[in-house]
Amino acid sequence: MQIENLAIAIDSVWIMLCAILVIFMQAGFVLLEAGSARMKNAGHIAGKQLLSFSIVALAFWAVGYGLTFSEGAFIGVGGWFLDFPVEEGAVPTEILFLFQLSFVAVSLAIAWGGFAERAKLSVYIIFGILYTIVIYPVVGHWVWGPDGWLHALGKQDFAGSTVVHLQGGIAALVATMMLKPRLGKFNKDGTPNLIPGHNQVYSVLGVLIIWLGWFGFNPGSTLTAQDGFFGYVALTTNLAAAAGAIAAMITIRMLVGKAEIPTILNGVLAALVAITAACAFVEPWAAIIIGAIAGSLTVFTAIYFEKKGIDDPIFAFSVHGVAGIWGTLSTGLFASPRLVESVGVGKAGLFYGGGLTQLGVQALGVFVSAAYVGVVTFMILWVLKKISGIRVSEEDELLGLDLSEHGGYGYPEQLSKAEMAKLSKKEGAL
Amino acid sequence: MQIENLAIAIDSVWIMLCAILVIFMQAGFVLLEAGSARMKNAGHIAGKQLLSFSIVALAFWAVGYGLTFSEGAFIGVGGWFLDFPVEEGAVPTEILFLFQLSFVAVSLAIAWGGFAERAKLSVYIIFGILYTIVIYPVVGHWVWGPDGWLHALGKQDFAGSTVVHLQGGIAALVATMMLKPRLGKFNKDGTPNLIPGHNQVYSVLGVLIIWLGWFGFNPGSTLTAQDGFFGYVALTTNLAAAAGAIAAMITIRMLVGKAEIPTILNGVLAALVAITAACAFVEPWAAIIIGAIAGSLTVFTAIYFEKKGIDDPIFAFSVHGVAGIWGTLSTGLFASPRLVESVGVGKAGLFYGGGLTQLGVQALGVFVSAAYVGVVTFMILWVLKKISGIRVSEEDELLGLDLSEHGGYGYPEQLSKAEMAKLSKKEGAL
Amino acid sequence: MQIENLAIAIDSVWIMLCAILVIFMQAGFVLLEAGSARMKNAGHIAGKQLLSFSIVALAFWAVGYGLTFSEGAFIGVGGWFLDFPVEEGAVPTEILFLFQLSFVAVSLAIAWGGFAERAKLSVYIIFGILYTIVIYPVVGHWVWGPDGWLHALGKQDFAGSTVVHLQGGIAALVATMMLKPRLGKFNKDGTPNLIPGHNQVYSVLGVLIIWLGWFGFNPGSTLTAQDGFFGYVALTTNLAAAAGAIAAMITIRMLVGKAEIPTILNGVLAALVAITAACAFVEPWAAIIIGAIAGSLTVFTAIYFEKKGIDDPIFAFSVHGVAGIWGTLSTGLFASPRLVESVGVGKAGLFYGGGLTQLGVQALGVFVSAAYVGVVTFMILWVLKKISGIRVSEEDELLGLDLSEHGGYGYPEQLSKAEMAKLSKKEGAL
Repeated sequence: MQIENLAIAIDSVWIMLCAILVIFMQAGFVLLEAGSARMKNAGHIAGKQLLSFSIVALAFWAVGYGLTFSEGAFIGVGGWFLDFPVEEGAVPTEILFLFQLSFVAVSLAIAWGGFAERAKLSVYIIFGILYTIVIYPVVGHWVWGPDGWLHALGKQDFAGSTVVHLQGGIAALVATMMLKPRLGKFNKDGTPNLIPGHNQVYSVLGVLIIWLGWFGFNPGSTLTAQDGFFGYVALTTNLAAAAGAIAAMITIRMLVGKAEIPTILNGVLAALVAITAACAFVEPWAAIIIGAIAGSLTVFTAIYFEKKGIDDPIFAFSVHGVAGIWGTLSTGLFASPRLVESVGVGKAGLFYGGGLTQLGVQALGVFVSAAYVGVVTFMILWVLKKISGIRVSEEDELLGLDLSEHGGYGYPEQLSKAEMAKLSKKEGAL
Repeated sequence: MQIENLAIAIDSVWIMLCAILVIFMQAGFVLLEAGSARMKNAGHIAGKQLLSFSIVALAFWAVGYGLTFSEGAFIGVGGWFLDFPVEEGAVPTEILFLFQLSFVAVSLAIAWGGFAERAKLSVYIIFGILYTIVIYPVVGHWVWGPDGWLHALGKQDFAGSTVVHLQGGIAALVATMMLKPRLGKFNKDGTPNLIPGHNQVYSVLGVLIIWLGWFGFNPGSTLTAQDGFFGYVALTTNLAAAAGAIAAMITIRMLVGKAEIPTILNGVLAALVAITAACAFVEPWAAIIIGAIAGSLTVFTAIYFEKKGIDDPIFAFSVHGVAGIWGTLSTGLFASPRLVESVGVGKAGLFYGGGLTQLGVQALGVFVSAAYVGVVTFMILWVLKKISGIRVSEEDELLGLDLSEHGGYGYPEQLSKAEMAKLSKKEGAL
Repeated sequence: MQIENLAIAIDSVWIMLCAILVIFMQAGFVLLEAGSARMKNAGHIAGKQLLSFSIVALAFWAVGYGLTFSEGAFIGVGGWFLDFPVEEGAVPTEILFLFQLSFVAVSLAIAWGGFAERAKLSVYIIFGILYTIVIYPVVGHWVWGPDGWLHALGKQDFAGSTVVHLQGGIAALVATMMLKPRLGKFNKDGTPNLIPGHNQVYSVLGVLIIWLGWFGFNPGSTLTAQDGFFGYVALTTNLAAAAGAIAAMITIRMLVGKAEIPTILNGVLAALVAITAACAFVEPWAAIIIGAIAGSLTVFTAIYFEKKGIDDPIFAFSVHGVAGIWGTLSTGLFASPRLVESVGVGKAGLFYGGGLTQLGVQALGVFVSAAYVGVVTFMILWVLKKISGIRVSEEDELLGLDLSEHGGYGYPEQLSKAEMAKLSKKEGAL
């Protein structure tokens, strides 16, 4: 037995553990999204999440992983069906694949936020496949690929504020704008109505699971357990999340006088999204600032988008898009020289005298990624809209997607067809 | 410090992690089974699962593990209370025990599916003890014991399609037939009624957790982290599960026009069950085929058993029994020479020119295991039926087992005795 | 690469895994506590748990960890913001911190049980901060600090029956007595009313997750994976929990004729609490006895405190306080010479001819810890009561804390302001 093999075994166990933690985030998204939706759509939301993970698992194995991680100028060409050369003294490809798969699945789960409570099931399936093989691998290759051009420029995105979250957030924004607001969300004069989610215990639980999964997400992105650096990454991640919760609570309490729970949950998530790029590059105090700003910012952007007539049902763009941008830019400000040197990507940030170079690289990365995802998402949904439509009928939306897409309510003892019909008549559009 | 000790430490952490993941499947079964049952039985279903894990934890420690894993012709004789000699340079017995304990607990959880919504709590307790010390260890010893005769014949069952799932599925089938269908399940003319579960979010979440637990179940059965082979096993497992979901969705959509969520969940589980025997012996493409066939097959068998007047409330036999058989047989077809050689159990399958030998061994294994479990389960339940009865009274079944077995509803604010009584009168048998 | 570094890498992964498992217990407490409360308070209970973890994460990082684990006579002085010297050949401080953080968070979650369904959100926030920096670190330092005086006396508390559970349980007791019983809990003649929790599936699931987390809690407290001893600790922990469930079931069935689920859950938790001190010091048979006694004892103490007019809504004192005392004392009886020698703390117990020495040390530890926590908790809450009050208004309590503290119900489709108001009028105090 050789000591090198042992080191690989430890790294393999570590990365596998992190992959499992991040895959667990699928359960977190089920709870968060179902809890944030209405009872009549809860079964559908949970079920489509499992379906979409299944689709991603096959499509990313067949082509997505190769597109992202094999060599090529604009995109990888090769590695189909994980056909990579077996390397001695390296973590097996299958394990690295499962880790990366868990990231795409999170990114797509974020995108679904923009589709919630009105998109057809068939749209989930088709868009899910295309997201996995046409959208995600391109930006993924630019930033993390062996010869990605953004990587070559020194773009800092340790665990994917841009690759995973910004992509998902932009796709969600485009989708929600193309799908139009949910029935009853806005009055004729444009003022918004609150459509509260049906179960905050689910939502809180979902966010706790997602937070837990993030201990795989960011620390796992070290891809090794050898030097214990993953512990440092776990610390900055955790501090940022905590700061985000508290900042969001203070902000919303100042604005409306109550510590609204959905807002606090958004604060946690926004902070986690923001620290994802920065976790390995910044000091603990900076992690707290980054998280707090993200948590507070998301309160304002959520209000702003609603005022602009955009119905972002699960706050996907506010949380993952805006905080993805902020997090990506934040290393341009806070990246600490000692950490940048040790990680070996990019340069120190503005506040350490690094000038505007890194900030510029980060901004460029945000811009081109958002532009690519936005345009391709638009094109896909535009075509789907022309061919078959992307939204269920008004009647189906009123009765709920549980019924229209899956043939039965998720809560059949609490909702029945007759009751729902009555309800929808009585309450009008809602 | 010696390098051998480090290798053991890594393996110990790996197996412990996998044990924890598989124990987590208990939570998955709580959610799946409770979500698939009615509100009036939900507290009971959740509570009995925790009780049954407790019983197994003690009984398997005291005698079950010794019966399974110590030497002996038909069954192990020794190893009571984990009294195994301490081996230098080996993973400690306690850790191996916890891993194996998690398997028995899953097997019993599967069996409970056949008892759901009408068996007495006392039957759960007595049968649970006997399953752990009289049923499971026998087949377990034959297949995985140090001198098991099926093992000696070269039976391939990497992580327990036969040992864990087929056993649980057969026990569930015998139990559900002896308990007779739930009140209201069949009309007088024999046509079935749908009795939908009360919470699909629970069910989906349960299946996601079970899927997650399977990353411990199959990859952990390598019992080492040294060569990274566990990553390969994790990959085939995940591909099969994904294929099962999609195959089930397509099948049910073709049959009834809707992507019914319980059916998709069964597809995932059936695929996981099937790949459990085969995960280490087959290529990724074969894993997809095995999973897809399992996922589709379970749709038809579920319909078939219902037509035959069998009420399988949680689809335990359709999912774990049928797919357990299919998975066990599948290596007889698909086992790849390179993998068979590396794992070192049995021979290559029919499609690789291995002839019918391995298929015959697999079929023999299925037959004798199913026969043993079926006969002993029948005998136990027959005796219990004679002595004390195995089913609650009709009145108790109508009011719910929460009330009759535990003295209070699991959802006391949503169900009250008075309301339930009224309900049961109004709706007749249901 | 050096073999020592590999050993550290394994230990780091192991401790990180355990930290994650124990942090997952936050989700377990959300489910247990929300499930044990009424629907009108469920969102609040879940949300405050996430907030409180956030507060602890920052406060323990800034000062709590240093107070607990740096040198000092009564309390540590130093280590602010994790400023500990970097040691070669040791698990990084960040990882040890995350593990210890998970313990404080559990301790505080226990304390919250005494505040449930009537304390103001602001009290949660202020008390949470003070608990983390004024209460927990003091007893923590005495027992686990590098020069703690109880540690020097040989107090055995392997994973925190005293430090984590007794502290939380005592704080809960003081809080629940100062807050007074919930409206409707006691009639005018002092007889208690049952206020059942709203969702037993949540509660069972919560306890299963907490049980799972305990595989990090106790085995992780070995702080190394090198010798596989963590497997032994996992075994005693699991046996005790199982015995607790069964003992509680038998006890309650004998008392009231039904296997009440909340009681069984308390039995599991009490057993886990009790074995936490003893897990590394006792034989498996003793673990079963310790767990069974804890599980049975908690049934009687729960009834006793209710008779005494104390409303302990989540049974925090019965489960964590009483069992924390019993568990701490239990090593004074059962500590086995071979294990005491191998762990290297304290002496063998009374039943092994160790005399009363160890029992005395354990009793002293219980007494001073309980006294410190009790007095300081009283002082903090007394001051808060004078300044701003600690309990919400009667009207707010009737409508639910979801509404008063967070501005909206956690189950808005099932509860509405109007309905709740009607309900509270109709049912009077309840």
